Amino acid sequence: MQAFEFHNPTRIVFGEGRIRDLDRLVPPGAKVLILVGGASAERTGTLSEVRQALGSRVHATFSGIEPNPTFETLMKAVEQVRAGGFDFLLAVGGGSVVDGTKFVAAAVPFEGDPWQILVQRGQGVKAALPFAAVLTLPATGSEMNSGSVVSRKSTGEKLFFGSPLVFPRFSVLDPAKTLTLPPRQVANGIVDAFVHVMEQYMTYPAGGHVQDRFAEGILSTLMELGPRALSEPGNLEVRASLMWAATLALNGLLGAGVPWDGATHMVGHELTALHGIDHARTLAVVLPSLLDVRFEAKRAKLAQFATRVLNIQEGSEAERARGAIEGIRAFFEALDVPTHLSAYQLGAEVIPAVLTQLEAHGMTALGERRDQTLEMSRAILQGAL
Amino acid sequence: MQAFEFHNPTRIVFGEGRIRDLDRLVPPGAKVLILVGGASAERTGTLSEVRQALGSRVHATFSGIEPNPTFETLMKAVEQVRAGGFDFLLAVGGGSVVDGTKFVAAAVPFEGDPWQILVQRGQGVKAALPFAAVLTLPATGSEMNSGSVVSRKSTGEKLFFGSPLVFPRFSVLDPAKTLTLPPRQVANGIVDAFVHVMEQYMTYPAGGHVQDRFAEGILSTLMELGPRALSEPGNLEVRASLMWAATLALNGLLGAGVPWDGATHMVGHELTALHGIDHARTLAVVLPSLLDVRFEAKRAKLAQFATRVLNIQEGSEAERARGAIEGIRAFFEALDVPTHLSAYQLGAEVIPAVLTQLEAHGMTALGERRDQTLEMSRAILQGAL
Repeated sequence: MQAFEFHNPTRIVFGEGRIRDLDRLVPPGAKVLILVGGASAERTGTLSEVRQALGSRVHATFSGIEPNPTFETLMKAVEQVRAGGFDFLLAVGGGSVVDGTKFVAAAVPFEGDPWQILVQRGQGVKAALPFAAVLTLPATGSEMNSGSVVSRKSTGEKLFFGSPLVFPRFSVLDPAKTLTLPPRQVANGIVDAFVHVMEQYMTYPAGGHVQDRFAEGILSTLMELGPRALSEPGNLEVRASLMWAATLALNGLLGAGVPWDGATHMVGHELTALHGIDHARTLAVVLPSLLDVRFEAKRAKLAQFATRVLNIQEGSEAERARGAIEGIRAFFEALDVPTHLSAYQLGAEVIPAVLTQLEAHGMTALGERRDQTLEMSRAILQGAL
Repeated sequence: MQAFEFHNPTRIVFGEGRIRDLDRLVPPGAKVLILVGGASAERTGTLSEVRQALGSRVHATFSGIEPNPTFETLMKAVEQVRAGGFDFLLAVGGGSVVDGTKFVAAAVPFEGDPWQILVQRGQGVKAALPFAAVLTLPATGSEMNSGSVVSRKSTGEKLFFGSPLVFPRFSVLDPAKTLTLPPRQVANGIVDAFVHVMEQYMTYPAGGHVQDRFAEGILSTLMELGPRALSEPGNLEVRASLMWAATLALNGLLGAGVPWDGATHMVGHELTALHGIDHARTLAVVLPSLLDVRFEAKRAKLAQFATRVLNIQEGSEAERARGAIEGIRAFFEALDVPTHLSAYQLGAEVIPAVLTQLEAHGMTALGERRDQTLEMSRAILQGAL
């Protein structure tokens, strides 16, 4: 196992009806800006529950944070916070709203051009407004970590920043809030969480015995319950475990002390930035092909996954590893999440621009051993057509 | 899944040589009281490493915290802190030292008789000194939780308290420090961690899909690596994963949202208080018999454990459940940790006093459904002879 430091101070408040706990958890005198995405938080009644729980606290709402939140939109929220003197932010929505709120929290007190927060990957963040989240869409894990991804419309860029100052103070996870999600979003969330775990697990055997078991536990849960969330859309027990699984998939625990391969996200981000494909759907396109191209590097862990998660006990290590890739592809497809670019009417003609963007963003040595060249990324995209 | 709140702010600093990080982590102007158990911290050189890392900070050492730390001893440390004006405590040792330090941290600013901290189970704790831990013996999980058990020599009592104010600020986990432990302590630590997980897992199916998988992951790790820690005493990779497993076994994560059965600890505590048996060894005596006596209540989870952890795929649910109990008993015995009271030259004559103490401490309705009567506890002890 590698040396590591693990610290996650976010408080999780989990269960049906827990939005009412906001009254206990938000500081009594806070002046609150609520940040939301589209109209669904209003339509489903979640926003009025939130406002009611805030009681006599001064609050206002900033609406319109997009999926893949943009710098341009978030800077409008920053202006509203500064002009209105808000001192507590409350994200109500999914990962995009939470990610966007993290950026706003860091940008409000930031001296200089806030885009530099992203260019510097968060290094320059010296302060952030306190904020919390009411999660309505389990997927990204943003509700219990200190990372955020923001896109810039004007340039087509999509960049990450992280800072220990942008852990949510608390996050309310009410699984009943996920029952009204469209099936496409449910499936996207399951795939996103699955790939988060994969990126911390599907590397090489590194002596992280507990980390491996925990990762396999979440992967098993997602593969067992994911299809049931779609076939039994009213099953709250299923939704509750999926929600908690998605949070634990990226709260720092699985990755502590083991290698990490973020290549699937890096390539996927460019596909979203250039072609507007849903974040999770880009991951489902990239991962199976990446596992084919990087087969030798990942063979031992693929075989371990096959044995422990897919219960493939027969065959050589290579055969079981092949079975693992087939099983992953089949899992995504069963959730109605395509694993080929052709499903988005995209062909080989898109590859050069993706590679150009990867190069521009310094993504020329990806993977847990920093040995995934641009040529390998080309092969991955070729295999994903 | 049940509603829950999870919050664990302890920072874990994991890896060989990390004691030097104390210089970064302990506040620069702190006046530090180091708390230790016997002479081993001095003998192994850990204490001098700690003192060196503290640099120019003022520090002193309180020595002599016992296994099953006593109120009487800890109150001497409280006096030393008050008299010396120490403002930061540093536990260097195993779970007993960390537990004891938690009590000292809470007792120093406590108004009134500090024994009330334990009588009230921590409810009355309104403040605590900041403290941290350098762990040398993985077992109790105390390094990443907010609970503590303290004994009173004068009365033979052993009581628990918990408070969010007694999370360690940070804990340094250097697995190399565990290489010098005697085999008996290594085995005890593995059994203690195993039973911590069991108490959060071996109840009834409660829809905690991820919690079950995580629990099974730690149990599998302990069963796989525990015997190897004894047969390969120099294997640092094995020790590292066991150390992290023991911490995660009782940091609140496994138990969040699922039922809990603390009965093994409750009965075991009385055996330690009355007969001085090592804490973990009392658990190994109680648990297998408890699972026999509570067989029907725990049958479904026993069978799940048999299938997923012991890989028993054949037989009826009851047969697999029986196999689980046999497997657990064999695991303890293979670590040279006896599962019968006769190994300690104790017989049926000790049972009445244990029951009297359980009754005196209000332990008359134990278990996850609060249905374990004193008569059942008698049967458990009878079965453990």
